[in-house]
Amino acid sequence: MTIWDQHALISPVIDSEIPSSSSKTTNDRPRLGIMASGSGSNFEAIVQAVQSGQLDAEVPIVIYNNPQAAVVDRAARLGIPAVCLNHRDYASREALDGAIVAVLRDHNVNWVIMAGWMRIVTPVLINAFPEHVLNIHPSLLPSFKGGRAIEQAFQSGVKITGCTVHYVVPEVDSGKIIMQAAVPILETDTLETLQARLQVQEHKIYPAAIAIAAG
Amino acid sequence: MTIWDQHALISPVIDSEIPSSSSKTTNDRPRLGIMASGSGSNFEAIVQAVQSGQLDAEVPIVIYNNPQAAVVDRAARLGIPAVCLNHRDYASREALDGAIVAVLRDHNVNWVIMAGWMRIVTPVLINAFPEHVLNIHPSLLPSFKGGRAIEQAFQSGVKITGCTVHYVVPEVDSGKIIMQAAVPILETDTLETLQARLQVQEHKIYPAAIAIAAG
Repeated sequence: MTIWDQHALISPVIDSEIPSSSSKTTNDRPRLGIMASGSGSNFEAIVQAVQSGQLDAEVPIVIYNNPQAAVVDRAARLGIPAVCLNHRDYASREALDGAIVAVLRDHNVNWVIMAGWMRIVTPVLINAFPEHVLNIHPSLLPSFKGGRAIEQAFQSGVKITGCTVHYVVPEVDSGKIIMQAAVPILETDTLETLQARLQVQEHKIYPAAIAIAAG
Repeated sequence: MTIWDQHALISPVIDSEIPSSSSKTTNDRPRLGIMASGSGSNFEAIVQAVQSGQLDAEVPIVIYNNPQAAVVDRAARLGIPAVCLNHRDYASREALDGAIVAVLRDHNVNWVIMAGWMRIVTPVLINAFPEHVLNIHPSLLPSFKGGRAIEQAFQSGVKITGCTVHYVVPEVDSGKIIMQAAVPILETDTLETLQARLQVQEHKIYPAAIAIAAG
């Protein structure tokens, strides 16, 4: 019922026996538009799951908002088209989201995957893809919503934290949960070692959660 | 670093190799005064850990507040003196807590263990045993503080919940955390099956957390 990972408890079960042969036709496959602000490690994990056949989907586009984001280099290496929409070029969150929606539609995206997107999104984006916008948050929601979640957990003294993939709704970090992973916080941890332990699990559960939601 | 249980992630590590021979003299041993309102299953788990030598402590008294509480029968079976302090007999929370403190002191208690105690405690009790009052709460704090925590978690749609042993401070369910266990919420769960899964972990982590705090 549950996979017991060396470093985490993951729920619901991830089926590690997903066949590598695709059961979907090209037209059936979910088309994921990924949004990333930083290094793009979750973006890469998702693309690798697609390219290895574990996740039956296509990734026609990654959007980033920071011209210096390392995700650009990953996109080039992985062969995924990348578009920069610099939030500084837009007068409002809604204007930025409108531009994002236009790019996503240009690429026939039907699932929006926020993977370390550091801007709050508005109903302009959310309502353009009803119940088809996902996010990953580095805590066991509902604990530690909002920014600096890993630091919040680390400083609070909890012994277990984790990460959560959820649907995006206008209220931040509050949509329906698809999948979670719990990881221990060890006595010897620094913020960096904890973050690394969480990222290992993020990279597992995000592709699996997309498979559950879009499968 | 971490014990991987069939049904949970527990942190910090519980040393399953605790020797059964006691390293403490009678005078050194923590004397646990347990407070219970209901069936007393955590009370029994703690007493069994003591009687089996896993937890090097003594349990001179259990206090309960409901004359019908099933904990009475457990106490009789386990040979632990039980005292009923019926909250209905006291004009205020402080008056009840004053009576509890008197009974605990009569029995030379130095650690107060709230094990399903359903009354909010006051500084009268907390300040009588500074930093020596523990509680177990059936959620992964800081999520789902307060009453009906299991139901709150179940209805919220989280995929992982758990239980937490923490120090008691005047603000409910907010003291420093000693130990936590995470358990999955399965698609097939009812409130009852989830509660049963949580209790298994409560019975493991409470004796272990007492050993950490009072050891």
